[in-house]
Amino acid sequence: MALRARALYDFRSENPGEISLREHEVLSLCSEQDIEGWLEGVNSRGDRGLFPASYVQVIRAPAAEPPPPARYANVPAAGFEPLPPPAAFKPAQQQQHQQQHQQHQQHQQQQPPAAQQPPEPFPVPPAAGYPFPMAPYGGPYQPSQGSDDDWDDDWDDSSTVADEPGALGSSYPDYEAAGGGGAAGRYRLSTRSELSLGSRGGGGGGGGGGGHAAGHPHPAGGGAKSSATVSRNLNRFSTFVKSGGEAFVLGEASGFVKDGDKLCVVLGPRGPEWQENPYPFQCSIEDPTKQTKFKGMKSYIAYKLVPSHTGQQVHRRYKHFDWLYGRLAEKFPVISVPHLPEKQATGRFEEDFISKRRKGLAWWMDHMCSHPVLAQCDAFQHFLTCPSTDEKAWKQGKRKAEKDEMVGANFFLTISVPAGPGAGLDLQEVESQVDGFKAFTKKMDESALQLNHTVNEFARKQVTGFKKEYQKVGHSFKCLSQAFELDQQAFSAGLNQAIAFTAEAYDAIGDLFADQPRQDLDPVMDLLALYQGHLANFPDIIHVQKGALTKVKESKRHVEEGKMELQKAEGIQERCNIISFATLAEINHFHKIRVRDFKSQMQHFLQQQILFFQKVTQKLEEALHKYDSV
Amino acid sequence: MALRARALYDFRSENPGEISLREHEVLSLCSEQDIEGWLEGVNSRGDRGLFPASYVQVIRAPAAEPPPPARYANVPAAGFEPLPPPAAFKPAQQQQHQQQHQQHQQHQQQQPPAAQQPPEPFPVPPAAGYPFPMAPYGGPYQPSQGSDDDWDDDWDDSSTVADEPGALGSSYPDYEAAGGGGAAGRYRLSTRSELSLGSRGGGGGGGGGGGHAAGHPHPAGGGAKSSATVSRNLNRFSTFVKSGGEAFVLGEASGFVKDGDKLCVVLGPRGPEWQENPYPFQCSIEDPTKQTKFKGMKSYIAYKLVPSHTGQQVHRRYKHFDWLYGRLAEKFPVISVPHLPEKQATGRFEEDFISKRRKGLAWWMDHMCSHPVLAQCDAFQHFLTCPSTDEKAWKQGKRKAEKDEMVGANFFLTISVPAGPGAGLDLQEVESQVDGFKAFTKKMDESALQLNHTVNEFARKQVTGFKKEYQKVGHSFKCLSQAFELDQQAFSAGLNQAIAFTAEAYDAIGDLFADQPRQDLDPVMDLLALYQGHLANFPDIIHVQKGALTKVKESKRHVEEGKMELQKAEGIQERCNIISFATLAEINHFHKIRVRDFKSQMQHFLQQQILFFQKVTQKLEEALHKYDSV
Repeated sequence: MALRARALYDFRSENPGEISLREHEVLSLCSEQDIEGWLEGVNSRGDRGLFPASYVQVIRAPAAEPPPPARYANVPAAGFEPLPPPAAFKPAQQQQHQQQHQQHQQHQQQQPPAAQQPPEPFPVPPAAGYPFPMAPYGGPYQPSQGSDDDWDDDWDDSSTVADEPGALGSSYPDYEAAGGGGAAGRYRLSTRSELSLGSRGGGGGGGGGGGHAAGHPHPAGGGAKSSATVSRNLNRFSTFVKSGGEAFVLGEASGFVKDGDKLCVVLGPRGPEWQENPYPFQCSIEDPTKQTKFKGMKSYIAYKLVPSHTGQQVHRRYKHFDWLYGRLAEKFPVISVPHLPEKQATGRFEEDFISKRRKGLAWWMDHMCSHPVLAQCDAFQHFLTCPSTDEKAWKQGKRKAEKDEMVGANFFLTISVPAGPGAGLDLQEVESQVDGFKAFTKKMDESALQLNHTVNEFARKQVTGFKKEYQKVGHSFKCLSQAFELDQQAFSAGLNQAIAFTAEAYDAIGDLFADQPRQDLDPVMDLLALYQGHLANFPDIIHVQKGALTKVKESKRHVEEGKMELQKAEGIQERCNIISFATLAEINHFHKIRVRDFKSQMQHFLQQQILFFQKVTQKLEEALHKYDSV
Repeated sequence: MALRARALYDFRSENPGEISLREHEVLSLCSEQDIEGWLEGVNSRGDRGLFPASYVQVIRAPAAEPPPPARYANVPAAGFEPLPPPAAFKPAQQQQHQQQHQQHQQHQQQQPPAAQQPPEPFPVPPAAGYPFPMAPYGGPYQPSQGSDDDWDDDWDDSSTVADEPGALGSSYPDYEAAGGGGAAGRYRLSTRSELSLGSRGGGGGGGGGGGHAAGHPHPAGGGAKSSATVSRNLNRFSTFVKSGGEAFVLGEASGFVKDGDKLCVVLGPRGPEWQENPYPFQCSIEDPTKQTKFKGMKSYIAYKLVPSHTGQQVHRRYKHFDWLYGRLAEKFPVISVPHLPEKQATGRFEEDFISKRRKGLAWWMDHMCSHPVLAQCDAFQHFLTCPSTDEKAWKQGKRKAEKDEMVGANFFLTISVPAGPGAGLDLQEVESQVDGFKAFTKKMDESALQLNHTVNEFARKQVTGFKKEYQKVGHSFKCLSQAFELDQQAFSAGLNQAIAFTAEAYDAIGDLFADQPRQDLDPVMDLLALYQGHLANFPDIIHVQKGALTKVKESKRHVEEGKMELQKAEGIQERCNIISFATLAEINHFHKIRVRDFKSQMQHFLQQQILFFQKVTQKLEEALHKYDSV
């Protein structure tokens, strides 16, 4: 049963991501946990979004069950060990984060009505009909939480991730596709998690496109002045604002762009593209090894990275990846930074988990290296090349990355786009392309969610039902051969042996079915997880672009009304043009790697399936030959 | 819940197949329906068998559900149309048969206490834990019941099957194998049905070996004189008595054996064997065709039979097979006459049913032709060769078969066995062999039951679950390709088409899974049905043999005690020797065809499975190639 609340007063939504309330209206809450004084829910008109927590009164309902585990284990029918609920549900952490948020609230320029504090932390209730409010694997990135032992030994310079706004428990799948038919599995999808926005340097208030946002505010990323003179968004939680997009468009960003920081968008055959990395490279991630420090008091897993452009191996831990992700997500407002594979509270040293994480990190690394901007960025290069043994160099590079001024609004300063007469993009054309892409991501997100669910279910069936069926056939054949063995006559012995062999073949086929998902379905799910991360990034990117377009329109109107100088409006349009180029380049990059990845993954999947059925056929042929001599 | 009854008086079992009762003891009833005044049930010591209905009082219990349908449909999860309960449950028929039985009772020499008439016919309750008291397909033969339209147009000379003791509803699976783990499906197993015994010329009272009998009495088959002077079984329902075995052993059978009737048992390498048919033949059963008579008022299906030794096609209806079966079962007390495929009340003209019955009849025919004695028997030859158009010749042959004197006790007169010094079988050796075979049939019956259940379940899973899973994967791929199609760029079109093709491949694979059981599992079930029929026959055969052995032991004792002349005892031993030879020959024949049939069926099954997985692989390979040009 969904949580509900009753509106105490009328509330009019004024910004994207908010919904209006009418007094006495009953709403469904996505979580009882407010985020900086805002709650997320669905009003009686079916609109979903944020509203001030103090405008409603929560209607008490019994606590829901903790969410079920995932990865085949949706309905753990046979022999599956359920995973514990993800760490985000630990009440102590929620409390801790709440306090953090309250501190943040004091910095807010525009403060929402004070949030009603729920009497105690409350687990997220399952979505109506769908039993997985939160899948433990993948999905939108979740920065460090105390429960993940990766972070037990904090940085010696505790100036970084630990200070970032942490996670809050309101995670909720945003899948309401009409034809969906199912949603479950290990990945959380499309949820515009406050977390990913948080690590982008600010919480997302308004959700663009297929996603919705439930964010918490954060001082806008680097360099935005507060001396703006033209209209600014009232919703300070808007990604457009927080990403620095607004500040940049309004001309408030300033900074010195070093040559090394410059990024080019060029016009390729398919429109704007990021200029290709002139020194493309790859990086392997192998040999996850358990290491210890503090005389064995602390254990962790280190992965061996070998970037192809240096050939020098370095060892990195998950927390290093995590740190890097945080830097990148903050720095690049219109680039989809691939999400890391999920954290996991327990079983961190279990072989299965380590192997899965390694694969996830390898996927992540592949996408990092494939992206012209991300691949060349300083922080990433530092991560790839700094010798693991040189602690000093590591800290230096780390501090440098954290002090990088070219983040958020300033990032846009580093972008150069095709110039000259006619090089500017047509606003309407851009808008139509972005809208098209928005529709694309929504549909792809829905189908990825469905495919993920199907594949997860299919894997589960193979591991349980299919295996069982074939092994039951094997067992029955075995019983038959045992019965036949009671007939001791020599002429019947060959048949008995052949049937016994057939029994073993079916038993083996059952095992083949159970082993197969690891070969073919798991990689599909890994790919989907990565893309679901991208799809979760794009609404923000689109939102920034849309925000910029809106500003252009607004400025034109202001010019017409004589409220703004033409020059200023032209500046706004020019800067919007940069954002448009970057956005379209990012969209193009997405399509490029999408086609590449899905092609190769489908091929891999089919090849593995073919191999599998060939193995089955071979088993049966071996069995058949046993009858030749009967 | 099982039906229960309370014993009103003590009853001491005196014959095989009966169980003792103690006053006030509560029993589980297999059916409330008495058979000639006897009920079948399990007493408080766990023994199962017959006892006089008048010795107990039935404890009323609510009526049970009708049994579920079978052939994949045990749990009709998805889209399966359940079959109606078999006709045997129709109350009107039960009443009718009861009256028949009451008439028969008047001919009984030794009458059981009058049976309590249940107030109204009562459906057979499901066996505890097993939801299929009666499977509609196959299983022990059930002679004509009014509900089967095959019999709507009765024989013009109504002297035959219609007068035989008909079916009664007490059918109960005899499967209590410890490791069984499952019992269901289309076939009724191991139940020493009163029906098959009925058409053998008498109801089976005592079950030997793995089966148990629930019979009703019937005048002993042909020729038994009533002037016996030595000990006779008190249980006139014993198969030994009813088959004529007792009469023969006691020297009471007499008749003129024509040369054409003579049967030889010879000593082969594996012991006694039926002399091979010097003119082996086969007979095809094809082209089931709907025909009508009475100006279209009556419809029936006629099958085209082409025996290889004549090459002349004849057309026969199921009722002709049914008549033939009845004759053979009556004539041959120690030969396992293969059971016919089941009757079915509804859907008689449905293609699926007709095709299934044709296959079942073909199996039956194969076993008939393979049996040296059955293949050469007059009635069978008449059935195979009499022109369908010559009604007169048909009736003549039919009447001749029905007047055959060489049935039951007299049948044994037709058997000649190896003679001369040392040719007689060692009694202990025979007993041990027969006991071994009894254990074999029990084990084989259990494993056949389990295999049948597994295979039925496996087929159902493929038709429902497996198909669904593969098609869900196909559907999800289709959705993905549809989402991808929103990206109109040319470079992505190839991938979209390839994924769409993959989707179709998975859809097709789903269909392949659903179609497959027809190719491989159905034939396995057909084979099992046939063998389960044989296995249901053997307890009677063994019982006759055991009865003969007992008589030999008895006569030896009588000689020692001076109560019997040596010559008479030697006669008994000699005649018992004939029964032993015949029994062992039949056992040997069973093993021979068993090894032959199971070898070829396992080969067929594996070949079909291989073909299936190859087809699946091919589908996947086609899909994989679509990515080559992406």
